[in-house]
Amino acid sequence: MREIVVFSGSAHPALADRICGHLGVPRSRVDIQRFSNDCLQAQLLANCRQRDVYLIQPLVPPTQDNLMELLLMIDAARGASAAQITPVIPYFAYARSDKKDASRISIGGRLVADMLATAGADRVITMALHAPQVHGFFSTPVDHLTAIGVLAEHFRVQDLSNAVVVSPDFGNAKTATQFARLLGLPVAAGSKKRLADDKVVIDTIVGDVAGKRAIVLDDEIATGGSVIELMDRLAEQGCTSADVACTHGLFVGRAVERLSTHPLIREVVTTDTVPPPTDWPQLQVMSVSSLFAQAIARIHDGESVSSLFNGVDPSHAPPEATLPLG
Amino acid sequence: MREIVVFSGSAHPALADRICGHLGVPRSRVDIQRFSNDCLQAQLLANCRQRDVYLIQPLVPPTQDNLMELLLMIDAARGASAAQITPVIPYFAYARSDKKDASRISIGGRLVADMLATAGADRVITMALHAPQVHGFFSTPVDHLTAIGVLAEHFRVQDLSNAVVVSPDFGNAKTATQFARLLGLPVAAGSKKRLADDKVVIDTIVGDVAGKRAIVLDDEIATGGSVIELMDRLAEQGCTSADVACTHGLFVGRAVERLSTHPLIREVVTTDTVPPPTDWPQLQVMSVSSLFAQAIARIHDGESVSSLFNGVDPSHAPPEATLPLG
Amino acid sequence: MREIVVFSGSAHPALADRICGHLGVPRSRVDIQRFSNDCLQAQLLANCRQRDVYLIQPLVPPTQDNLMELLLMIDAARGASAAQITPVIPYFAYARSDKKDASRISIGGRLVADMLATAGADRVITMALHAPQVHGFFSTPVDHLTAIGVLAEHFRVQDLSNAVVVSPDFGNAKTATQFARLLGLPVAAGSKKRLADDKVVIDTIVGDVAGKRAIVLDDEIATGGSVIELMDRLAEQGCTSADVACTHGLFVGRAVERLSTHPLIREVVTTDTVPPPTDWPQLQVMSVSSLFAQAIARIHDGESVSSLFNGVDPSHAPPEATLPLG
Amino acid sequence: MREIVVFSGSAHPALADRICGHLGVPRSRVDIQRFSNDCLQAQLLANCRQRDVYLIQPLVPPTQDNLMELLLMIDAARGASAAQITPVIPYFAYARSDKKDASRISIGGRLVADMLATAGADRVITMALHAPQVHGFFSTPVDHLTAIGVLAEHFRVQDLSNAVVVSPDFGNAKTATQFARLLGLPVAAGSKKRLADDKVVIDTIVGDVAGKRAIVLDDEIATGGSVIELMDRLAEQGCTSADVACTHGLFVGRAVERLSTHPLIREVVTTDTVPPPTDWPQLQVMSVSSLFAQAIARIHDGESVSSLFNGVDPSHAPPEATLPLG
Amino acid sequence: MREIVVFSGSAHPALADRICGHLGVPRSRVDIQRFSNDCLQAQLLANCRQRDVYLIQPLVPPTQDNLMELLLMIDAARGASAAQITPVIPYFAYARSDKKDASRISIGGRLVADMLATAGADRVITMALHAPQVHGFFSTPVDHLTAIGVLAEHFRVQDLSNAVVVSPDFGNAKTATQFARLLGLPVAAGSKKRLADDKVVIDTIVGDVAGKRAIVLDDEIATGGSVIELMDRLAEQGCTSADVACTHGLFVGRAVERLSTHPLIREVVTTDTVPPPTDWPQLQVMSVSSLFAQAIARIHDGESVSSLFNGVDPSHAPPEATLPLG
Amino acid sequence: MREIVVFSGSAHPALADRICGHLGVPRSRVDIQRFSNDCLQAQLLANCRQRDVYLIQPLVPPTQDNLMELLLMIDAARGASAAQITPVIPYFAYARSDKKDASRISIGGRLVADMLATAGADRVITMALHAPQVHGFFSTPVDHLTAIGVLAEHFRVQDLSNAVVVSPDFGNAKTATQFARLLGLPVAAGSKKRLADDKVVIDTIVGDVAGKRAIVLDDEIATGGSVIELMDRLAEQGCTSADVACTHGLFVGRAVERLSTHPLIREVVTTDTVPPPTDWPQLQVMSVSSLFAQAIARIHDGESVSSLFNGVDPSHAPPEATLPLG
Repeated sequence: MREIVVFSGSAHPALADRICGHLGVPRSRVDIQRFSNDCLQAQLLANCRQRDVYLIQPLVPPTQDNLMELLLMIDAARGASAAQITPVIPYFAYARSDKKDASRISIGGRLVADMLATAGADRVITMALHAPQVHGFFSTPVDHLTAIGVLAEHFRVQDLSNAVVVSPDFGNAKTATQFARLLGLPVAAGSKKRLADDKVVIDTIVGDVAGKRAIVLDDEIATGGSVIELMDRLAEQGCTSADVACTHGLFVGRAVERLSTHPLIREVVTTDTVPPPTDWPQLQVMSVSSLFAQAIARIHDGESVSSLFNGVDPSHAPPEATLPLG
Repeated sequence: MREIVVFSGSAHPALADRICGHLGVPRSRVDIQRFSNDCLQAQLLANCRQRDVYLIQPLVPPTQDNLMELLLMIDAARGASAAQITPVIPYFAYARSDKKDASRISIGGRLVADMLATAGADRVITMALHAPQVHGFFSTPVDHLTAIGVLAEHFRVQDLSNAVVVSPDFGNAKTATQFARLLGLPVAAGSKKRLADDKVVIDTIVGDVAGKRAIVLDDEIATGGSVIELMDRLAEQGCTSADVACTHGLFVGRAVERLSTHPLIREVVTTDTVPPPTDWPQLQVMSVSSLFAQAIARIHDGESVSSLFNGVDPSHAPPEATLPLG
Repeated sequence: MREIVVFSGSAHPALADRICGHLGVPRSRVDIQRFSNDCLQAQLLANCRQRDVYLIQPLVPPTQDNLMELLLMIDAARGASAAQITPVIPYFAYARSDKKDASRISIGGRLVADMLATAGADRVITMALHAPQVHGFFSTPVDHLTAIGVLAEHFRVQDLSNAVVVSPDFGNAKTATQFARLLGLPVAAGSKKRLADDKVVIDTIVGDVAGKRAIVLDDEIATGGSVIELMDRLAEQGCTSADVACTHGLFVGRAVERLSTHPLIREVVTTDTVPPPTDWPQLQVMSVSSLFAQAIARIHDGESVSSLFNGVDPSHAPPEATLPLG
Repeated sequence: MREIVVFSGSAHPALADRICGHLGVPRSRVDIQRFSNDCLQAQLLANCRQRDVYLIQPLVPPTQDNLMELLLMIDAARGASAAQITPVIPYFAYARSDKKDASRISIGGRLVADMLATAGADRVITMALHAPQVHGFFSTPVDHLTAIGVLAEHFRVQDLSNAVVVSPDFGNAKTATQFARLLGLPVAAGSKKRLADDKVVIDTIVGDVAGKRAIVLDDEIATGGSVIELMDRLAEQGCTSADVACTHGLFVGRAVERLSTHPLIREVVTTDTVPPPTDWPQLQVMSVSSLFAQAIARIHDGESVSSLFNGVDPSHAPPEATLPLG
Repeated sequence: MREIVVFSGSAHPALADRICGHLGVPRSRVDIQRFSNDCLQAQLLANCRQRDVYLIQPLVPPTQDNLMELLLMIDAARGASAAQITPVIPYFAYARSDKKDASRISIGGRLVADMLATAGADRVITMALHAPQVHGFFSTPVDHLTAIGVLAEHFRVQDLSNAVVVSPDFGNAKTATQFARLLGLPVAAGSKKRLADDKVVIDTIVGDVAGKRAIVLDDEIATGGSVIELMDRLAEQGCTSADVACTHGLFVGRAVERLSTHPLIREVVTTDTVPPPTDWPQLQVMSVSSLFAQAIARIHDGESVSSLFNGVDPSHAPPEATLPLG
Repeated sequence: MREIVVFSGSAHPALADRICGHLGVPRSRVDIQRFSNDCLQAQLLANCRQRDVYLIQPLVPPTQDNLMELLLMIDAARGASAAQITPVIPYFAYARSDKKDASRISIGGRLVADMLATAGADRVITMALHAPQVHGFFSTPVDHLTAIGVLAEHFRVQDLSNAVVVSPDFGNAKTATQFARLLGLPVAAGSKKRLADDKVVIDTIVGDVAGKRAIVLDDEIATGGSVIELMDRLAEQGCTSADVACTHGLFVGRAVERLSTHPLIREVVTTDTVPPPTDWPQLQVMSVSSLFAQAIARIHDGESVSSLFNGVDPSHAPPEATLPLG
C-alpha cells in the first residue's frame, strides 16, 4: 500500500501536527522561501514519489499568500511524481464568492477550484463550505466534512433542558436543524432584512425563544456583526442567555472584543479549522483534527468517508427517498 | 458584422418563433432524425459558417431527449464552422441537481454544464436558475436573465393596495423581495419544516398576511405540492385571496387540477420558458420572448445584457458597496 | 489489489447479474431517481473509494435515458473517488453515427465518446462496434470484444456439411470471413444497391449459395428490413434454408413478426448484449456475459484481454505482417 | 474583414502557388531550418496577427518531416497571434491508420488529428479521406472535399458509350457509384479475398464488364499492386481497355513502371493533391487547386463549402431523408 | 472593429493612465473588494461584451495580492463575454522561478502561466522576462517587449566617447550586447563565482573598463546587492564612474540607500514597469507606456508588434540565417 | 507491485539492451511498420495492461522519424491500458528550440513536450537538457538526470595535478563548475562574441589556462565547430593539451575528422545517450545505462531519484538556502 506523506503550509501548522499525531505519521517539512521581489517558492523536504501526499492549508489571512503557498506545494508535489495529491483545506474562504450578484463580477470560488486542479490537485478535503453548491465548482472529487458532530459533543454533556438552537438566518437553517436533532432540541431562526444596500438587520426571530437559553450555530464568524445583531434581537425577545457555536472562528476586526463583552453571551465555541485568536483564553476550541485524520486514513484504506458521519449528517446517511419537486 | 442564425429543437418551437419574430430573422430549419435504435441525429438546414448560431431548447420533458437534441445540434454547428455557438436554455432543468446531499450522488447540474462545453457551446443564455450558484458550474460565460420584470408588468396595472408578495420559502426570498420592490409591496415568506425525511410542511408564515391578498412568487412549479401547502397556511392565517406567479410553469402530474380548483387561488401567471399545458385556458402566460430576443440582439451588437435589467434586478444594477462578512 | 464493484443501470440488469455471477461478486445497488421535471439522478449504494468500478449499460431504447443514467453513474463514481471507472457498453448504439454523410450533420458517435470522457470514464468495454474506426473516436482505451466466437459455438455442434456463411453486405464481409473460418465454411455476400435516396435493395449475391443452407451473420438487426431483403435474394438464387445470426438483436418495429414468419428462415440466433424481445420464445440467445466477465477479470489481474480472442478474431491474434498499400 | 495569409511547407509548393493564384493572394514565405541535430524550425515571414492563416502541406514522403514542418508552422502561427489557423492537408496520409486491427497497435490517424489540435489548428481542410469515419477523429471542424467532380470532368468530354465505372473493392464502392452517376454510367466492383495473411487477391468482378471499357476509380494509388491485380481480372473477364483514375497519385516503388506498361491500361488520371512523379509525362494530372481556393474563399466569406459540391457529392447535397437501420 | 477596454488593478494605476493617454481611451474603472476574511473580489465597471479587454498589472509586492487581483479580473472579463482578454504584465515577477535547481521544488513561472490561461487569458503582453525560455511556459501567445531602446534613448544624447556597457553577469550579456550596439559602444561583463552556497561574488570583469565610464545594464534590481558588488570590482579595475540602467527597478530593502550613496554611481536609470520608490527624486525614470500603448494599438489593428522593435532588438529584426549547432 | 515493461524504438536499441540488463528484465519487442506512403505504425508485442511501460528513444537523426515512432508507441501503450507510460528520452534534441529569438518562430521544445502529453505520456525521463528552463515546458513530471558524475569517473583515476575544467561559454558554466568541484579542479570559460549574424567567435578565455591541461565540458557536440574554435583560443593562451567531454556526442558532419585530428586534443569522452559514430574507435564512451536503470528502478520502488545524484549535482542535494535576488 502506498505511503502517506503530510505537509503543512504556513497557515496552520498546529492543526497539521494534531492531524499527524492522530495518523501516527511525522509531519514532513516544507521550505517556503519568500524572494526579495515577494515571490514565493515551495520545496518539499521529503520524498513524494508514488506516495499519497496531503497538503494541509486553511485559507486564512493573509489569504492570497496562503493560497499561493498551497498552489506551489501542489505544483512541487506533482513535479515530484506524487501518486495522489490532496489539498486539505479546512476553511475554503473563497466559497463565499459563489455567484454573480452584480454585473461583471468574478466568481472566486469557481476560479480557485479550477486553479487547484490546474496546479495538480487530484482530490480536495474540506469542511463546512459556505454553500453546498460550491461542491459542484470542483472538477475533482471533494470530501466535504462537517463539524456539527464535534460541536454537539461540547453541548451534549451540559443540561440542555431549556435550550433552543438558533440559526442567524434561513440560509443556514438546514444545518442548524441537523445540529438541533443531534442535541434533541427545538430550532429557531433569525429573519434577515436588507434595510439598504449596505446594511442588513435581523428584524425577527421565527420560533419560540422567550425565556430560553439560545445555542446559536453559524458556519463562520468574521467580524461578528451578524451575531451581535442577532444577540440584540434575542435579548429583545426575552432570551435569557446565549452560547455561540461556529465551525470557522476567524474573529477578525473587533470580533473578540464585541463577542467577549456582550452581556447575553455566555460562551463561544469554535473549532480549529483556523488558528484561534491568541488573546481570548475563554474561547472554547474543539478540535476537528481527529475528523481530518480519520478521513485521510479512510481514503488511504479505501473505506467510505461518508460513513464517518452516519448519525451526524443526514447527507451522509444511508440513502433515503428523494423529495419530489414542489 | 457576423450574421445571426437561430435554430430550435423539438422542445418549444413556438417560443423560438416568437424570439425570431422580435429579432426579425427567420427561424432556420433543423432535421432531427430518430433511428430505429432510438438514436437521434441533428442536421442544421442553414449555413452556419462564420455565423453566430443560437440554439433554443428548454430542458422540458422528455428531458433527456431534449438535452441530447441540443447537444447534437451544438455538435453539428461546431462541425459546420459556426463562429459562436450559444445554446439558449430558457429552463435549465438540471439546475436542481446542484449539490451532494447524500453519499455517492451525481451532481447533474455540473455534469450537464460540462457536457454543453464538451459539445462545443461558447456561451449559454438561461433564465431563473434554481440556485444562483449554478452559474458557477459553467466554464463558459452565462447570460442569466430574470423574468421578474415581466411578471411584475402583469400585476402593475392592477389595484395592489392590499397586496403582499409571499415567497414559499426563504431560499427564494431574495428574489421575492426584488419582485416586491418592483411592485412597491411588502413581502412575507413561508417557513418550511422537514417533518420526516420524505415530507415537508410549511409550518408558519413570516410577515403579515391576514386580511391581505397574497401574490405568491416561485421560480418553478412542477406538481404544485408546495404551492398548495402554502395556500392552506395562507388561508389559516386569514389571507383573503392569492395570485400565483412563477417563471417556469411545468404543471406536471395533477398540478393543473390542483391549482385551478383551489378556493384561495384567484389567478396563476407564468411565462413561456416552457410550453404551457394545453388544457388550462385560464392560465395567464406572459412571454419572455422579447427578453431573449433583446439579449441576443445585445450580444450581437456588443451591448451590455445586464443593463437590460436595470431597475429590475439589483444584481444587474450599477455597482454598489459590498456587504462585509458577518 | 483493488476491489471490483459492479453496478447496472436500468437498461439490462439481467446481463449485469450474469456477469456478476461469473465474477463471483455481488451486483451493487444503484438508486435511480426520476424527478417530476423528468431529470434523472443516480446514487451508487456501495462504497467506490479506491475501487475499480464497472457500470454495465447497453444503449438500448429508451436510448437517451439509458445514456444519461450511465453518464450520471460515472459522475457519481468519480465524485465518490473511484480508482478506475469503466463503463461496460455491450451495445454502443451511437456507433452508427460515425461520419458526416450530409452537410451540417452531427457525428453522434464521437460526441457520445467525448461525453463519456467528460463524465469521468477511464476506459470503455464494448462489443461489435458498427465500424472498427469508431474505436478511434474514444480518447480513453477501449476493450473491443467480439461475439463471433460465441455465435460460432452455437453452430459448431451442428451438421454444417452444406452450409455457407453469408454477409448481407460488403462492409461487414471481413467479420463474416472470420466467422466462416471458425466454422470451416465458405463465404458469400450480398451486394447492396441504392435504388433511390430512400431505398436500398440487395441486387445480387457474390458467391455460390444455390442448393445450400445459408448462415447469415450481421452485427445488428433492428427492424429486420435488410435481412428480409437478403432472404428474398437467397431464395431466388436457390438457397434451401437460412439461419440468421447477429450480435445485437434489437428486433424493433415489426422485426419479430417478419423474421419469425419468413419461410426461408430456420432459426435466429443472437446474444444478450441487449435484452431479448419478450414475445419470441423461439429466439436463440447465446450469452456473452462470460466474455465480459473474463474481460473484467483480466483487466483486474492485468492480463491481456486480446488473448481472450486468440483463434477467434485475427485482429487479436499474435502480430502478423502488415499488408502494403495497394 | 480579416486578411488571408497563405504559407506552404516543403511538401508541395507548386500546389500552393496554384491555390494562391486562384485566390489572387501572394504566397507568403516560410523559412524552414534544419539544424545539425536534424531538428526542424519554422519561421513565418509575413505578419499573421489577427489574420486567417492557411498552411498548405500534403503528408507525402518524407511524411514525418512534412508532418513536423506543418506542426511547427501551426505553432509559429499561434505564437504570432493568428486569428484562425487552418492546415490545408490535401492528402492526409495517416487516415489509413484508422482502426485497431491487431493488439496493442497505434491508431495514427487519431493521434495525428490530436497533434494538429495540440499545435493550435482551429480547422482542417482535406480531401478524400481513406475512410469517412476519420472525419470523426478530429476535434476541430473539418472541411472534407472530394475530387470526383474534377476527375469526372476529364471523362465527360469523351465518348463514354461503352464504358463502366469499376471500383477495386467494395469499401470504395459508394464513391465509385457517385462518380458513375456523374458520368451516367453503370458501376462494377472487384471482390477482394484474403488468400493468406500477407496476400490479397481480387477473385471476382461483380457487375458486367465484358466487352467494355473500364474506368477504374480509387482514392489512392501507392505501389499500384491492387490496380494491377484488378487489371488482370478485368482482362480475364473480357474488358477491352481500362482508364485508371485516382485522387491521390503517390506512385511509389515500381508503380510508374507497372502502370505505364500494363497492356490494358489506356490512360492514368490523377490530381495534384500530391506532387506528380517527374518521370511520367503521359500521366494526366487534373488540378484540385481551384477547389481548395474556392473552399478557402468561401470560408473567408462565410459561405457554405458544402454547396461547392452540390450535384457532385450527395453527402453535400440538400438534406435528404435518412435511411432506417436494417 | 472591436472596441478596446482597458482596466488596471491596484498594482500600478499610474502606468495604466499613461498607456490609456497614449491610446486615447479612458481607463475604465474596477471595483476591487477585500472581504473581512481577506478574500478579494473584482468587478469590472465597464461593458466588456465583444470587446478586447486589456488588464494592466505588474506583479510587484504585495505580489500574491496583485496576482490574485489580476486572475479575478480575467475571470470577470471572461464571464462578461469579452472577445479577447489580454493581461498586460509589464513585470512578470515569477519568471525567476524558471527551473528545478533543487529537488521537489515548485516552478512558479510555469504555474502562474498556467493559472493565467485557466482564468481565461487569451494572450499576454510582458516585458523583459528574466530568461527568454520563460516565453515557452505560456500556452497562449506572448508579446514580449524590450525596454532597451527606451533606455538607450536616455544615453544617446550624452557624450559617450569614453563609455563601455557592462553586464553584471554572462546570463544577461546578450541583451547588454544589443544595448551596446544601439549606442555604438563596446561591452564588458562581470564573471560571477559562487563562493559558498549562500554567497555570490563577482571575481572578475571580462573586457576593458580601466579609465572608462561604465554603463551597467541589468534586467531587474531588487535589493541591489549584485550591482554594489559589481561597483566594487569596477572601482578596483579603474573605472572612473558608473551609470546603472535596468528595466525593472524594484529597489526593495536597502537598495535606495545603497545605490544612491555609492561613490562610483553617477546616475540610476530605470523604467516605469513598476512603481518607482517615492523617496528617491534623483532616480531617472523612462516611461515604457508608449511602447505598451503601441503594442496594444498594433494588436488591435492587426499590425506586427515585432516590427515595433526593428533596429532595437535583433530577435525582432527581419529574419536572418540561423546559426548551426556547435 | 506493478510490473515493468521496457520497449525500444529504432533509435538506440543497444542502450535499451544495456538498461534492461541492469534492470534484469527482458527488452520487449516492438514491431514498427513503414507503409508504402511512408506512414509509420507501432505495435507493442508484450502485454502492457496495468503495467509501467518505459519507452526508450533518444531523438537522434532521423529525428522526425524517431519522434513519430515514440509518439506512436506511447499511443499504442495508452490504447493497451498501460498503468503508467514513461518515455525515456536520453537526448531531447528539441530542447535547443527553447525561445523566440526571431519573430514568428516556432518553439519546438514546448511543442514536442505538449505532443508527448497529447499522445499519453505520464512522465518523462531525460538527461542534460540544453537549458534547465526546458524542464518547465513539460506539463508532466520530468526526471532530469545528469551525466557529469559518470564523466567525472573517467577522469578521477587520472593524474589531474595540472588540469583545469573549461566551459566553452558562460551559459554552460554552472554545470562546468559542478563538474570541476567533483574533480577538485579550477574552472575557466570561453567568452563568445557574435561577429556577425551568422558567425560566432570565442574571443577570450576567462580564467588561467596557460601551461595547463584543459578538460573541456560541453552538453552536446554536433558539428564540433565551437569546440574547434575553443581549441584555437586555448592553444593561443598557452594550453598544453585538451580533453573534450560531452554528454550528447552526435558528431555529425565533419565532426569526427575535425576532432580526431586537432593537435591540442588528447582524448574525446562522451556517453551513450546517442549511438556513437561507427568509425571512431578512439572515442571514449562512458555508459549512462546504469543511471537510467537506477532511475527506473527507483521510480518503480517509489524511491527518490534525486538522491541518486547526491554529491554529484547540487541541484539534487539536500535543501539549501536560496540566494536573494540581486
